Amino acid sequence: MTAGNPEALLDGWRARVDGYLAARLASPAGDGSPELLEAMRYAVLGGGKRLRPLFVLAAARAAGGDPDAALPFAAAVEMIHAYSLVHDDLPAMDDDELRRGRPTVHVVHGEAMAILAGDALQALAFETLAEAPLPPERVVAGLRTLGRAAGALGMAGGQALDLLSEGQPATEDLVARIDRLKTGALIAASFRLGAEAAGAPRELAGRLEAAGRAAGLAFQVQDDILDATASTEQLGKTAGKDAVQEKATWVAAVGLAEARRRAAEAFAETRELLGPLGPAAEPLRRLVARVEARSS
Amino acid sequence: MTAGNPEALLDGWRARVDGYLAARLASPAGDGSPELLEAMRYAVLGGGKRLRPLFVLAAARAAGGDPDAALPFAAAVEMIHAYSLVHDDLPAMDDDELRRGRPTVHVVHGEAMAILAGDALQALAFETLAEAPLPPERVVAGLRTLGRAAGALGMAGGQALDLLSEGQPATEDLVARIDRLKTGALIAASFRLGAEAAGAPRELAGRLEAAGRAAGLAFQVQDDILDATASTEQLGKTAGKDAVQEKATWVAAVGLAEARRRAAEAFAETRELLGPLGPAAEPLRRLVARVEARSS
Repeated sequence: MTAGNPEALLDGWRARVDGYLAARLASPAGDGSPELLEAMRYAVLGGGKRLRPLFVLAAARAAGGDPDAALPFAAAVEMIHAYSLVHDDLPAMDDDELRRGRPTVHVVHGEAMAILAGDALQALAFETLAEAPLPPERVVAGLRTLGRAAGALGMAGGQALDLLSEGQPATEDLVARIDRLKTGALIAASFRLGAEAAGAPRELAGRLEAAGRAAGLAFQVQDDILDATASTEQLGKTAGKDAVQEKATWVAAVGLAEARRRAAEAFAETRELLGPLGPAAEPLRRLVARVEARSS
Repeated sequence: MTAGNPEALLDGWRARVDGYLAARLASPAGDGSPELLEAMRYAVLGGGKRLRPLFVLAAARAAGGDPDAALPFAAAVEMIHAYSLVHDDLPAMDDDELRRGRPTVHVVHGEAMAILAGDALQALAFETLAEAPLPPERVVAGLRTLGRAAGALGMAGGQALDLLSEGQPATEDLVARIDRLKTGALIAASFRLGAEAAGAPRELAGRLEAAGRAAGLAFQVQDDILDATASTEQLGKTAGKDAVQEKATWVAAVGLAEARRRAAEAFAETRELLGPLGPAAEPLRRLVARVEARSS
């Protein structure tokens, strides 16, 4: 890992995140259910871009902190994300059979085990926060941030809005509100968790969180564009589902061309917010640039 | 509330728990989904014995702490318990339509909303820990305890074992293992959380947790006995389901008479462990006695 090379740093961090997640899920089931642990491993260790944990680590560094000490916060966010995908794919929810190019958890392990694996992953995410080698007040700050972002006024609330919106006219207001909660809250929280792990002063934490909100919007608009334009093979999940399920997406609300303009605008806003942060924020800037360039 | 009367203390605490839970779920949905919040309220505010939060408060007092400061810990445990019932009742799980004398959450709000309400309640539980007016290291201790008790090596793991055991011979070992995780872990954690909120020294926290383990076993054996002997009307949930679903219960494993002996034995062990704790533990002793006397 070259300290001076942001791309190498990001690749190194990604390996650390994967290693941490694998270790956290490798513990023998003990008295517990080996089948449950297997379903949890399948959900978390089956690939994924690890975007959110990398946001945590890069934001920690941008705020002058030690990314290593933020690793448990990063892993926790990824566990929340992974559990939400497991539940989102359930037959009673979005009913999807393909994720990250593989059959979804309930297809492989059954519905009951998928529900429980998601539940256990959420508990493990919060428990993992407590593993951070950080002053306890920073862990408590992280707990507050992750709890809010995952809950009714964050991700779970956004998924409820999303489900209830199916078949309704996709107005811009509705789409913006769903996204702010469903994906935006956890991405903004990733930036904030990095700042909190670093013990960043309030103004810096606020700036990073604002950058995370802009990045979250950019990411979601882009996701809607990809769902409408890329193939299932490229995405590793079923493409074109949004239109079939009459989801409230940016493409449905403002059209493809305008959606592209909005995504570019939100990426630009993210860059602007990160601009003044100096060389420590370079890995975070590169990470945002990678996201902007993604095709899946 | 009379300080000197343990029964009055318990009743007062119960009102405080109900009030705290109602307040925590009363916040307007804001950007979120009013339907989701309604499902969460239905799940938590629809009665229930509030046994676990009362264990937290009574254990806090037994350890010389202030039950008021432990109230967020108590509410968090009840939210975990309530979410687990919502998910446990789902068609893909135990498939039950009656709980606390009312239709279950998915019957009223639909399966998707029941899954999300459970998910959001778990997040809210952890977030609520951070509300405790306690030194941050105690909050982190509580986070670790609740995370472990709710997860794969606790409640969720026990539910997985329980589901996978259906139709298998109910050996004593299997039943003991399931119960230790499925209900035992959260009840033992309730005792421990009280001790942690009070900043109890390790030996005292260990004794209270051991008492919680004994109480958890006593409670579960008693639950199996009630399922086999009480009516649906008495229980407020479908009676006799264990036998129909070929669940691994104490009644199936050792028979009704021996199950009764085991329950009495576990209650006696709980009393013994609490015996040396002095007058501060009197509300906790009364609470255990109330549980032993319950008929639903």
